[in-house]
Amino acid sequence: MEINLTLILDLLGTFAFAVSGIRLASKKEIDWFGAFVIGLVTSIGGGTLRDLLLDVTPFWMTNHTYFLTTAAALAAVLIFKEKLLKWNNTLFIFDTIGLGLFTIVGITKSVNTGLSFGVCIAMGTITGTVGGVIRDILLNEVPLLFKKDIYALACIAGGLVYFGWIYINITQNITEVIGALTVIIIRLIAVKYHIHLPQMKPIQSK
Amino acid sequence: MEINLTLILDLLGTFAFAVSGIRLASKKEIDWFGAFVIGLVTSIGGGTLRDLLLDVTPFWMTNHTYFLTTAAALAAVLIFKEKLLKWNNTLFIFDTIGLGLFTIVGITKSVNTGLSFGVCIAMGTITGTVGGVIRDILLNEVPLLFKKDIYALACIAGGLVYFGWIYINITQNITEVIGALTVIIIRLIAVKYHIHLPQMKPIQSK
Amino acid sequence: MEINLTLILDLLGTFAFAVSGIRLASKKEIDWFGAFVIGLVTSIGGGTLRDLLLDVTPFWMTNHTYFLTTAAALAAVLIFKEKLLKWNNTLFIFDTIGLGLFTIVGITKSVNTGLSFGVCIAMGTITGTVGGVIRDILLNEVPLLFKKDIYALACIAGGLVYFGWIYINITQNITEVIGALTVIIIRLIAVKYHIHLPQMKPIQSK
Repeated sequence: MEINLTLILDLLGTFAFAVSGIRLASKKEIDWFGAFVIGLVTSIGGGTLRDLLLDVTPFWMTNHTYFLTTAAALAAVLIFKEKLLKWNNTLFIFDTIGLGLFTIVGITKSVNTGLSFGVCIAMGTITGTVGGVIRDILLNEVPLLFKKDIYALACIAGGLVYFGWIYINITQNITEVIGALTVIIIRLIAVKYHIHLPQMKPIQSK
Repeated sequence: MEINLTLILDLLGTFAFAVSGIRLASKKEIDWFGAFVIGLVTSIGGGTLRDLLLDVTPFWMTNHTYFLTTAAALAAVLIFKEKLLKWNNTLFIFDTIGLGLFTIVGITKSVNTGLSFGVCIAMGTITGTVGGVIRDILLNEVPLLFKKDIYALACIAGGLVYFGWIYINITQNITEVIGALTVIIIRLIAVKYHIHLPQMKPIQSK
Repeated sequence: MEINLTLILDLLGTFAFAVSGIRLASKKEIDWFGAFVIGLVTSIGGGTLRDLLLDVTPFWMTNHTYFLTTAAALAAVLIFKEKLLKWNNTLFIFDTIGLGLFTIVGITKSVNTGLSFGVCIAMGTITGTVGGVIRDILLNEVPLLFKKDIYALACIAGGLVYFGWIYINITQNITEVIGALTVIIIRLIAVKYHIHLPQMKPIQSK
């Protein structure tokens, strides 16, 4: 039962990440195959970098779900087109659930390899955010991650809460749920109230 | 004898991939060293990502041929300059042979690791196409792969034919030749008749 | 004592690399977190790619120093702002020391894995230069490395000197110092006298 819930959330998150990649790709004279690849990379890029750094087999190489979910996302964009805009809020919720889940999955996978908690939080943040960074690089844009909103900071906060709960000895399952909820709630609040970090000011050099 | 043919085709493909990188680099105020690196990355980038994903030592780390072939490609571009344009068709043939060969080499290398056939085809496609994607990222362009022509789809079709032949139990050597020829022929036909996938239409959001 | 000197030079180099990333980021409407990530990637990106290629655990995953040094670099940029420009020459020296040190560290780490000397020099050059390349990709620019100055060539020259000394059987420590000094001196001379490689000329095709 619990496994099924995780699986469903994973699929919804993957779907939402893929749709975000495909929609941004659709603004750039990209063909269907290109849109599929960019959607796929958006949803699996973070976990792939994490697995390369951890030196384990990238998760999608032994599981076809992510290819199929991305294909479904492409089909949805091609079929529903502008109607998809009505679902913006729902997709945003899925995307945020995905961010929370992916972050905590990344942390848990790293904890098992014996890394320090700071590096585990970095791995969780990489899992949640690097797919979007690669998407923006492929589409020739400065990554959104670096420019607006609280996104990575929500992952880091979720990671700190996660290790806080572990420190006071709460069971693993509860810790994971609370960590993911922290990511999700911080992101929702940050977007609702337009909370973001200060921008850098350019330093005038020759 | 057969080994020698594979080696010659590998060199021709590497040379053509490197020339494509160097020629695109030459439009961007890049110096000789930069052109060499971009030529090298174009020819070895796909196989390098494949080997990182498969967790084996990247092929060029135990074989200097690819450095030397790229150096020869740079020398050819610097010496022949505009005269190279006369060789456009020949280079296109080499490039297409390279695509077919690299794809099938990538698939064969992955089959040996016990991955599912879908992932093996993805590995073959990565081997054939990711060098060009990294080339375009380094040159600050949206990857051509995502924008025009049938390129990756030829790799995927070659992979499907490859596994079809294996399924009906043809010997390995014949399977590899037929798989590579499928890639090559589909690409030649697609370019000759301007066959390409439909483009995405932008979805108007806020 | 000697370990301490290496450590200090490593920190100074990391600091200077991070500052270069953060300063370039500050021109691009990037927020504080984005600037931190770009500074971090600039200082650790080359060594990370090297470690992935060598199939060893990336160095920063077992050592928090690089996170802390990057945080210090971000603090310095935020606090000193334009005053930092007075320190341009000092930062340039640190940056060049970092280049020399990172190159030789990369070579030494690769020698221990039994790779050929040409590939070891490539690994050293990757260690010294790839961080800056990823920085420029993230900031949506054609990498500076490919466009001006002698930078990678200084790494390669340092590597050749390193293996020359090893060939005539000088002790390891002296070899490393002389290799690093070669990188540093060539870069200083190249910048002072505006020595650079010729640029590619565009080939007019259709």
